[in-house]
Amino acid sequence: MIIVMQQGAARREIEEVMLEIERLGYKSHPIHGVERTVIGAIGDERGKMRLQMLEMAPGVERVIPILKPYKLAGKELHKEKTLVEVAPGVVFGGARIPVIAGPCSVESFEQICATAAAVKAAGAAMLRGGAYKPRTSPYAFQGHAEEGLKMLAAARAQSSLPVDTEVMKESLVDLVASYADLIQIGTRNMQNFDLLKAVGQTRKPVLLKRGLANTVAEWLMSAEYIMAQGNLNVILCERGIRTFETATRNTLDLSVISVLKRETHLPVVVDPSHGTGHWEYVEDMSLAAIAAGADGLIIEVHPNPHEAWSDGSQSLKPEGFAALMTKARAVAAAVGREL
Amino acid sequence: MIIVMQQGAARREIEEVMLEIERLGYKSHPIHGVERTVIGAIGDERGKMRLQMLEMAPGVERVIPILKPYKLAGKELHKEKTLVEVAPGVVFGGARIPVIAGPCSVESFEQICATAAAVKAAGAAMLRGGAYKPRTSPYAFQGHAEEGLKMLAAARAQSSLPVDTEVMKESLVDLVASYADLIQIGTRNMQNFDLLKAVGQTRKPVLLKRGLANTVAEWLMSAEYIMAQGNLNVILCERGIRTFETATRNTLDLSVISVLKRETHLPVVVDPSHGTGHWEYVEDMSLAAIAAGADGLIIEVHPNPHEAWSDGSQSLKPEGFAALMTKARAVAAAVGREL
Amino acid sequence: MIIVMQQGAARREIEEVMLEIERLGYKSHPIHGVERTVIGAIGDERGKMRLQMLEMAPGVERVIPILKPYKLAGKELHKEKTLVEVAPGVVFGGARIPVIAGPCSVESFEQICATAAAVKAAGAAMLRGGAYKPRTSPYAFQGHAEEGLKMLAAARAQSSLPVDTEVMKESLVDLVASYADLIQIGTRNMQNFDLLKAVGQTRKPVLLKRGLANTVAEWLMSAEYIMAQGNLNVILCERGIRTFETATRNTLDLSVISVLKRETHLPVVVDPSHGTGHWEYVEDMSLAAIAAGADGLIIEVHPNPHEAWSDGSQSLKPEGFAALMTKARAVAAAVGREL
Amino acid sequence: MIIVMQQGAARREIEEVMLEIERLGYKSHPIHGVERTVIGAIGDERGKMRLQMLEMAPGVERVIPILKPYKLAGKELHKEKTLVEVAPGVVFGGARIPVIAGPCSVESFEQICATAAAVKAAGAAMLRGGAYKPRTSPYAFQGHAEEGLKMLAAARAQSSLPVDTEVMKESLVDLVASYADLIQIGTRNMQNFDLLKAVGQTRKPVLLKRGLANTVAEWLMSAEYIMAQGNLNVILCERGIRTFETATRNTLDLSVISVLKRETHLPVVVDPSHGTGHWEYVEDMSLAAIAAGADGLIIEVHPNPHEAWSDGSQSLKPEGFAALMTKARAVAAAVGREL
Repeated sequence: MIIVMQQGAARREIEEVMLEIERLGYKSHPIHGVERTVIGAIGDERGKMRLQMLEMAPGVERVIPILKPYKLAGKELHKEKTLVEVAPGVVFGGARIPVIAGPCSVESFEQICATAAAVKAAGAAMLRGGAYKPRTSPYAFQGHAEEGLKMLAAARAQSSLPVDTEVMKESLVDLVASYADLIQIGTRNMQNFDLLKAVGQTRKPVLLKRGLANTVAEWLMSAEYIMAQGNLNVILCERGIRTFETATRNTLDLSVISVLKRETHLPVVVDPSHGTGHWEYVEDMSLAAIAAGADGLIIEVHPNPHEAWSDGSQSLKPEGFAALMTKARAVAAAVGREL
Repeated sequence: MIIVMQQGAARREIEEVMLEIERLGYKSHPIHGVERTVIGAIGDERGKMRLQMLEMAPGVERVIPILKPYKLAGKELHKEKTLVEVAPGVVFGGARIPVIAGPCSVESFEQICATAAAVKAAGAAMLRGGAYKPRTSPYAFQGHAEEGLKMLAAARAQSSLPVDTEVMKESLVDLVASYADLIQIGTRNMQNFDLLKAVGQTRKPVLLKRGLANTVAEWLMSAEYIMAQGNLNVILCERGIRTFETATRNTLDLSVISVLKRETHLPVVVDPSHGTGHWEYVEDMSLAAIAAGADGLIIEVHPNPHEAWSDGSQSLKPEGFAALMTKARAVAAAVGREL
Repeated sequence: MIIVMQQGAARREIEEVMLEIERLGYKSHPIHGVERTVIGAIGDERGKMRLQMLEMAPGVERVIPILKPYKLAGKELHKEKTLVEVAPGVVFGGARIPVIAGPCSVESFEQICATAAAVKAAGAAMLRGGAYKPRTSPYAFQGHAEEGLKMLAAARAQSSLPVDTEVMKESLVDLVASYADLIQIGTRNMQNFDLLKAVGQTRKPVLLKRGLANTVAEWLMSAEYIMAQGNLNVILCERGIRTFETATRNTLDLSVISVLKRETHLPVVVDPSHGTGHWEYVEDMSLAAIAAGADGLIIEVHPNPHEAWSDGSQSLKPEGFAALMTKARAVAAAVGREL
Repeated sequence: MIIVMQQGAARREIEEVMLEIERLGYKSHPIHGVERTVIGAIGDERGKMRLQMLEMAPGVERVIPILKPYKLAGKELHKEKTLVEVAPGVVFGGARIPVIAGPCSVESFEQICATAAAVKAAGAAMLRGGAYKPRTSPYAFQGHAEEGLKMLAAARAQSSLPVDTEVMKESLVDLVASYADLIQIGTRNMQNFDLLKAVGQTRKPVLLKRGLANTVAEWLMSAEYIMAQGNLNVILCERGIRTFETATRNTLDLSVISVLKRETHLPVVVDPSHGTGHWEYVEDMSLAAIAAGADGLIIEVHPNPHEAWSDGSQSLKPEGFAALMTKARAVAAAVGREL
């Protein structure tokens, strides 16, 4: 930590801060500048909130952390890329880029099985579908719950595609984990810390979506919550952030792929469907994500989008998805990867 | 709903949309403009997601909802202001403005009882304190859990101030409700829909904080989740939104007080401590909130902020809080209210 | 500046950075931590961009400035509040709070004179009105230009209210300054640096509106542009920032009043009309601004808002403005000031 | 326009609005719903601000525009893609994707000529370099002004690369246009309407950067300002928007490429250097932009970034740029285009 003293801080105040730093178990090291003094606090500052509280001490202007707050998710102590194997042969983080596809909600046995067959034929590596749906309105369809999980399992049995599905509360983690190959934490739950701890106690891979308005640092701290419980199989998923722009449902932040490559060893997947909210933009953003170095895609596909029970306007039809996959293969090859 | 057809939409497409509107149980009413056709769908559109899906039909450009999506929280069907009585004589929504004060976290029996005594002496109507703490870092203090609730109950017994405390997950709602007079839903849980349903099934008053990046419309839909379960005792709490500005921890959106007066009958409370993140700004923003018409305040007070286990930099000392209350009384009187 | 070296930076890289610091005229001071080294660069860093460029040197992770980048606008070297006198007896920054009122655009001689008379009767200290209008659409009314300035001058002559009007380009600064008592720099021009320099070369007081998405630090740097030319009569004007919320036209950031009190000696005025975009919200936000410590208000008033040529939906009628002034006087008195 | 009446609006109010619509030259068409009435106003609403003002009329809740506000920039009246030829063989909007490269600022004859040679060798189609620099601080290097333009002209003569350079004020448009092949309007000037009109009166191609916090609709209205003066050679440039995220300097909004393809016929160029603010992220974002369908790139390249006078941290070295170009060619080929 660097403690910046106020201009004109009293000598006694500076000494008191140095004493406090030593009391907390750090070494203190002052630099006396022309206009003000700054004090280095040497030691492992991570997880040490007390040091931050020096901001309230008399004469202190601000406290600047130097080290990253995340240990397990960061690259400082773990440099090589993590490979997360979701099912035999379906690995996120390697040269091959798995694509997860399927409807927003599992609506019926027929719908999910037909979609599974179609996306498999087009080259998807996994099936997605929600049985528990977080909906802004209490009057909207909330998902088929365990029935939906069973339909998903049936679609997996038919298609042999592993499945990704969302869990929304701690008490359902075991149930969802018993059906899913990849447990999804939705954007609204990125900082539902009890839920993070609960999925951290399973050994199932977790797809952790970025919160609507969360920074990269907060996102990695949420991954840290899961990893601190012993589950290191975390995949990050960018799905758009909230900005002033209304032409798209969210603003897909593709630059986060580059930032994450520098900050973490965890793989990153991109969701262009929620990221843009419009099916017309999904193909462009999928190709862009692959070109930028994404380790996976998650795309909404519905056999009949204008009859979808949720999110139809951002869903591709199976034929649109197949066309996308063909182009995506070409872009992946151009950057030395494959789908 | 208004369905706007694309420029040059075919006659057959227009007819198909009108048929679909009728099939869904609405009356359709076209207006043929110079460049394009718009179609009104007459009927109660609230909760009717299927109509929205017409956006995907051939020839449709966009679908514009006309009615507000919230029924119970909105003023259309319930015009008079709701009064929420949290304890005998402590009412939010009337001429008197209750102030909730206390530490971010309950740290010890001594700390919470001393704070309770101090804030009561200064005129606070309620005590706040967290026993379950949502913390960005898994390595930070997570709250004393049920022990914290017991300390809070002891402080209530000593001070006779009713208490407000946060619940973070569905499975703890009954426990927290058995201790609290007002159950707080934190900003990160504004769209934790299972939690909202669970507190909706109690009859305890709920303080619903606005999400970090949620619109007024989404916030009122979250209130609707609680109310749809039968619990009409909802108090809204503005606590700052996330913007590009970093001089404050969040951007306190005081204009939302005026917006809410127009949109809802529910009372609104302002949290200037989280809203700004700096204790120096709390007094100004408290006075501003009262002048703007807030129905309550919630303020962090700690006997010794630079030793607080969380959020010390935004906490007032008891003497600062007392000074604030004196000024707040004068401003309240100036706008025809009292503390 | 603090230069944070990368974890594992080579000794040679550290030495090279220290040499470079010395070459640029600063003293270097290293602190060797457990995991990495940080180096202090001692000296006046303001305006020294070259030091920042060390961020690109081998082995450097980041460079953290310690001093504020603004000298003239900041409180470090100028602690007492600046008083800006716009006309005899009309002073911003003192105990009395001047209110500027008038239409968005000067539309006609009759309109501006009638408005001037009405706002004066209600207690306004200044008249506002735009002769040059920045409009999003090229097809919208762009202002009466010099004719509008003449109408404004006539209204001043009749009402004896000093006038505030906007200048949009450097080449018109002299002309506008010859009519105006207070020159307004609009939100879209906060970083039109040539325009800032030009008004800095006059000695007319300047009302500098905050940019739509500009931080406090950038805003004060824009004030610095004006002041560096010798014109110290700068008044800052908060008028709402752009956020994700669409219930209001902008999000009025009243906490900036408190931030500015701490960062600068310049007076701050609040514009609740642009800040919210809805006349219904203007009164609440005016009272809030005064309670929070604003040094002035600027409010849109139009004799007939629904016939206004611009911004009618945020304009008060004269009677609404008079009612606001009555309440504002009470709130001002409650915080020890007067209108 | 659609005028939505308030719930319970009086019959007389509805009739008055209909009369007013007719008075303004439109046909009115009411739809009487169950809870409220909406009225269609039929006619060309573009540029008709008066209709919008009905929002202030008694009984009106809100006014919803149906048509896009831009005529010349929009696709409604001009469907085929516009090709902008900047110099013989350098065309934006076609299958070939021109890359503009060069330093942020023109620093010296040697620097700009060396950079020109290097970027040409790597395959750039144009040279960039600023002679007039908008800088947040008045104490930072503000550009070499006309001397800089001369250096740029010399570099063009040596390299035969056409040049792109920024103009910051109306009075310099003719001078800059006499040197530049492409006139750049910077992000801070996207709504400097007098400047837009001035470049609209030249016939030089214009690169219009998106404002820091401007929507697509506002951006296209700024293009409309230029086009309404007769200059149809407008190229749009996405350069990142301001959001809450601080891991990047701005948030590069690549989805805007897809939005613009749908909304306008104008070509779109991407600036990943300003978009991210970190040279490490420029390559990824360049490849992503091409994959998403961008019509050009503009990239900062400096022979010695850590000695750059501005923006060094986002500049590539010539060798980094050459490596990027190689990869960019492969991605372009994968999407059926070429560099």
